[in-house]
Amino acid sequence: MRLSRFFAPTLKENPTEAQIVSHRLMLRAGMIRQHAAGIYNWLPLGNRVLQNVARIVREEQNAAGALEIIMPTIQSADLWRESGRYDDYGAEMLRIKDRHERDMLYGPTHEEVVTDIFRTNLKSYRDLPKNLYQINWKFRDEVRPRFGLMRGREFLMKDAYSFDLDYASARHSYNQMIVAYLRTFARMGLRAIPMAAETGPIGGTLSHEFIVLADTGESAVYCHKAYLDKPIPENVNYNADLSHIVEDWTSLYAAADEKHDPKKADELGADLVSARGIEVGHTFYLGKKYSTALGAKVVGPDGNQVEVEMGCYGIGVSRCVAAIIEASHDENGIVWPDSVAPFYVGIINLKVGDKACDEACEKIHDAIQLQGCDALYDDRDERAGVKFADMDLMGIPWQIVVGPKGIAKGMVELKRRATGAKEELSLESAVSKLSATI
Amino acid sequence: MRLSRFFAPTLKENPTEAQIVSHRLMLRAGMIRQHAAGIYNWLPLGNRVLQNVARIVREEQNAAGALEIIMPTIQSADLWRESGRYDDYGAEMLRIKDRHERDMLYGPTHEEVVTDIFRTNLKSYRDLPKNLYQINWKFRDEVRPRFGLMRGREFLMKDAYSFDLDYASARHSYNQMIVAYLRTFARMGLRAIPMAAETGPIGGTLSHEFIVLADTGESAVYCHKAYLDKPIPENVNYNADLSHIVEDWTSLYAAADEKHDPKKADELGADLVSARGIEVGHTFYLGKKYSTALGAKVVGPDGNQVEVEMGCYGIGVSRCVAAIIEASHDENGIVWPDSVAPFYVGIINLKVGDKACDEACEKIHDAIQLQGCDALYDDRDERAGVKFADMDLMGIPWQIVVGPKGIAKGMVELKRRATGAKEELSLESAVSKLSATI
Repeated sequence: MRLSRFFAPTLKENPTEAQIVSHRLMLRAGMIRQHAAGIYNWLPLGNRVLQNVARIVREEQNAAGALEIIMPTIQSADLWRESGRYDDYGAEMLRIKDRHERDMLYGPTHEEVVTDIFRTNLKSYRDLPKNLYQINWKFRDEVRPRFGLMRGREFLMKDAYSFDLDYASARHSYNQMIVAYLRTFARMGLRAIPMAAETGPIGGTLSHEFIVLADTGESAVYCHKAYLDKPIPENVNYNADLSHIVEDWTSLYAAADEKHDPKKADELGADLVSARGIEVGHTFYLGKKYSTALGAKVVGPDGNQVEVEMGCYGIGVSRCVAAIIEASHDENGIVWPDSVAPFYVGIINLKVGDKACDEACEKIHDAIQLQGCDALYDDRDERAGVKFADMDLMGIPWQIVVGPKGIAKGMVELKRRATGAKEELSLESAVSKLSATI
Repeated sequence: MRLSRFFAPTLKENPTEAQIVSHRLMLRAGMIRQHAAGIYNWLPLGNRVLQNVARIVREEQNAAGALEIIMPTIQSADLWRESGRYDDYGAEMLRIKDRHERDMLYGPTHEEVVTDIFRTNLKSYRDLPKNLYQINWKFRDEVRPRFGLMRGREFLMKDAYSFDLDYASARHSYNQMIVAYLRTFARMGLRAIPMAAETGPIGGTLSHEFIVLADTGESAVYCHKAYLDKPIPENVNYNADLSHIVEDWTSLYAAADEKHDPKKADELGADLVSARGIEVGHTFYLGKKYSTALGAKVVGPDGNQVEVEMGCYGIGVSRCVAAIIEASHDENGIVWPDSVAPFYVGIINLKVGDKACDEACEKIHDAIQLQGCDALYDDRDERAGVKFADMDLMGIPWQIVVGPKGIAKGMVELKRRATGAKEELSLESAVSKLSATI
């Protein structure tokens, strides 16, 4: 992609409306623009990251056996009256009347809709277990939207809902999601720690928040330091018993503010980490709360009707984009982990119009594209300083600098954004070094 | 994917609420379920097709140089007041008040929002041309939602918006979209014909509807028979002049009902095709309608401010899913074109529990997956007739039937859904024949 044809309106100055670093850098890098309070446009650079994050979430949900569906953003109020939550939910629910004066709403969550799908289509214990998820936009009418994507009103979420015949099976479904989440956040370059949590208005009796540690996090968190380098599960067989993995990841002390127990924490002594955290995911074992309210039953092996056991599991997909920036940036801008970067490679042409420079840049660009990988080629007629600054601000993981002096000797400079390490290499070596990492 | 773990609640009987074949078959194949009038849940099978259609649209938009963004579904009414459309739009616009009593709406289209993005971020003729598109949900509050996805309320749409300095450049942007659309619909297995159209409430002076021919189409259409087998442009250089391609595709007679001129049509004699059609896309040259209303200007090469020339280009992504079914089905169900099929290969195990059958099916399943292609393996304990019927209803393009008699000789049956052609092959030949087509 040629930057001259792309659309990334970067800003030199810090926008005054942005109080936290992710909001500031997303505006400055030209990733997002505010449309209205808590409602954002995603520009091309932001959209590319959002899609990468969504892809990782999707791949790990699929690997864990969940099935992707799409539920509507606009829901009928009827199901919420049936579950009893229509009046309870409060002003955060965006309530709407359609042209026939029917009560509708923009879904802040989808327990009612998915339970309705279940009860009208699945009738036998043989259909279980099932885990249905979607990646779709939700709306919560926050009274004071702030912090950019962290506390916005319209946001992209992954929400999964599991249905099981009994507690043991429901617990296995819960464990599948815990393990999938560990892998999902790790693949985004995040260290997310599951912490026991309150269940709140969603209901249920067992719940974990996945909290990313970041100096700029929204709340205080406390955990055993062993969580900082605990290995992420690999080559998981999701059909096998996962309780030992979940046990390993949930038995040591880890608590956000609300659940923090100073006495227990103190017992850890030097092993206690106290830090700031950002919630990026939440898992809930729901039991029969919604299946009872909405009559979601199957015929069990003995011929009797059984209300199904449910769980629900959220990941804030758009929130993850902001959390990654909070966890990975420096004074020059964003430092994207390779897996979510909007472009894996940036090419900086120091002398646009110089035949040797232009040809070398196009050669590199085409070679990278041939690997099935997108490169961002800065072919603008701008000063070198502007180009370096924008490439760092946008956080491109690998940057190749092509200048007239170097290219006369066939050499380019390869820079790693995360470390700042630079090396001079022949054009061919730079391309093959990159290709080997793709 | 094992069908026993999948979620495709097929129906034997025709649902009484469905009046047209696509609606009927999408319900019967377990692709969708209605949530409320004109609002649908997409179950896993439907979601897979929808994603395939969206992927084709995205690839062709990108190839034509358009840049993907995401605009919010919930918009502020302010911009619509500025353009003068807030009062004009009528009851199809879903109007909402947020908790602070601010007027909001669920976007039925995004000219205002994208023009606002343009005017606040792009200032120079050097930034032009730009074409920004999104694939996102829209809502139009139809007074009588009907025909399933054909006239629903919440629907998935691709909408692109081009910005140019002058008419010649705007016309080139328009031509890029025309050519991209020809390729997009062809890749979905549709023959879509661009027909001169009214511009309606969107405005502008030049407009084409892309109409798919289908016996069950919503409106009468008339065109020169040359359109039926005109070759689709291949290896397009979108930077080159495209006017000869567009000329070739728009100069012969083609008109939907409203623009039909019986006198002109009669002149075609035996070359006239009169048929039924379904609109799947629409292109509009808008001129300066929105740039004037919202003040979207750039500094031109001479230093003067110029209002930009715009175009807008829609594809009904969810509508395409229905249109493909209208155009491609038989008495047994859906006949998916390979490119959009939810699964490319179906595997039918005629004797689940038989060691040889089970092993053969798993071997085929794994071999197909290794090609990066998804197979649907019917491992249910059901009668052969039910399995054949469901696989045809779901429209799986290639079907491999594994039975105990055949597999004792190492043989399986390979069936092509579209033609019904069957052949007996060794398991290895069947897999390598399929692999060669992937």
